[in-house]
Amino acid sequence: MAQKETIGFIGLGIMGKPMALNLIKAGYALTVNNRTPEVMEELVQAGARAAHSAREVAGQSDIIITMLPDSPQVEEVALGEGGVIEGIRPGALFIDMSSVSPNTSRKVQQALSARGADALDAPVSGGQVGAEGATLSIMVGGSEESFNRARPVFEAMGKNIVHIGGPGAGQVTKIANQIVVGLTIQAVSEAMTLAKKSGVDAGKVREALLGGFAQSRILDLHGQRMLDGNFKPGFRIGLHRKDLRLALETGREAGVPLFATGIAANIMDAMIAQGDGDLDHSGMAKFYAQMSGIE
Amino acid sequence: MAQKETIGFIGLGIMGKPMALNLIKAGYALTVNNRTPEVMEELVQAGARAAHSAREVAGQSDIIITMLPDSPQVEEVALGEGGVIEGIRPGALFIDMSSVSPNTSRKVQQALSARGADALDAPVSGGQVGAEGATLSIMVGGSEESFNRARPVFEAMGKNIVHIGGPGAGQVTKIANQIVVGLTIQAVSEAMTLAKKSGVDAGKVREALLGGFAQSRILDLHGQRMLDGNFKPGFRIGLHRKDLRLALETGREAGVPLFATGIAANIMDAMIAQGDGDLDHSGMAKFYAQMSGIE
Repeated sequence: MAQKETIGFIGLGIMGKPMALNLIKAGYALTVNNRTPEVMEELVQAGARAAHSAREVAGQSDIIITMLPDSPQVEEVALGEGGVIEGIRPGALFIDMSSVSPNTSRKVQQALSARGADALDAPVSGGQVGAEGATLSIMVGGSEESFNRARPVFEAMGKNIVHIGGPGAGQVTKIANQIVVGLTIQAVSEAMTLAKKSGVDAGKVREALLGGFAQSRILDLHGQRMLDGNFKPGFRIGLHRKDLRLALETGREAGVPLFATGIAANIMDAMIAQGDGDLDHSGMAKFYAQMSGIE
Repeated sequence: MAQKETIGFIGLGIMGKPMALNLIKAGYALTVNNRTPEVMEELVQAGARAAHSAREVAGQSDIIITMLPDSPQVEEVALGEGGVIEGIRPGALFIDMSSVSPNTSRKVQQALSARGADALDAPVSGGQVGAEGATLSIMVGGSEESFNRARPVFEAMGKNIVHIGGPGAGQVTKIANQIVVGLTIQAVSEAMTLAKKSGVDAGKVREALLGGFAQSRILDLHGQRMLDGNFKPGFRIGLHRKDLRLALETGREAGVPLFATGIAANIMDAMIAQGDGDLDHSGMAKFYAQMSGIE
């Protein structure tokens, strides 16, 4: 078997750290970098090499992975001063696994391919649990060739790994996912709040609906959370609101009016303003209960 | 075995006629009535007895079933002049299988119980196909005792038969179902239109999403319809709009603001105004395509 490619990993947050640890477990030689350097310590003890900058990471790696909060951070780390673009080697592969604007992904891919490298956008779903257990879903945009090259690396971090299309297609898929998940939570919240306020057993309604066209994983799992009033995250409202911002920006740029997504984003804003941004996104049912004068 | 109860059936439309035929097939003696009497002919040939009024039906039946377009028709047939209330016998059971306001169901149940009868609300889902194949889902509100009495009758028309709670609870469940189905269609429409307009293969997006939290029967079945541009009903936009009117009325009366349901109803209104009210409800994707300038 060919020698494993060397990997650089930038962004060791709640998601990035366990993902990087899984790469080390899979036998990859890792160089890491993080904005707050203390966080690198755990990775160094696990066998990684710490670098002082994104440029330095890029100079020592065949594949450079980023896992960052949002589009501006990815553009800064990839294309800014001291960034990946200043150190990346011809033939290297940049993989951004953050959830960012498809336009950011396309811009980064263009800039790096001008240096003889390539880039994939590969946002994930599955959250911290998926990152720790190496069971993330990974939605990939970019060339087929680079996707095939990256596949063993993805397989060390995730399970449901799908190549969707060209640069940005992974981000568009992640956004589509967050639209459907967010609006399905809203649908279930409206239905179950109406049942509850009408004096009808919402648990029985959920069960009846699961047997028909209204069936969804959200109705099953988050519907149960709503019945239990268990809004411990999971996936926080504040993070889902960020993803809907990406959705609405992408919709505006593409010329697609997202009527319902706009409403869901408004409601999440109200929840954040009221101090509920750290609830699980199923907590949207709490907003509807409040608006309906339930307890 | 005890002699089968005699059944009266009022409202022989697209749904009612096959439901009544299934009761005859199951061995029930049927008396039927319909606003336009010609429609009764087919039932009479199948062995039913034609009656001239709802009152006459009620006078000859242990169980009286209605399958009518909307709340006013049910109130008229059940409680109006020449209606069921004038003929119903003590101990008889009235079952309204129409989709109407929970308040109508409660009002009818109260009025008939004052005559020594009882009433169930038992709206269905599954459409014409389910009515013909006796595979309807039936959501029932009313007393446990009357539910048990009606069960063999329901079993001649449907499969997924659930007792939810007291009078009106069946209607609330049906409304909850139509909220979740309508808003999930809207969610999938927004996501798939965004993918398409962004130049991303919407079929691959659907497949990727089906593997995760965004999974739903709607994404599976109606997502495929959207990809195929197949908006042949199925369940018409115009009918779904009626169900969302019931939802919004019930929400207003109960004090539950239904933000997203309101948006979906607005969009259905626009589709009806543009002549698309007879499309399948998955045709909401056509509206989003138009709004996005996709041919």
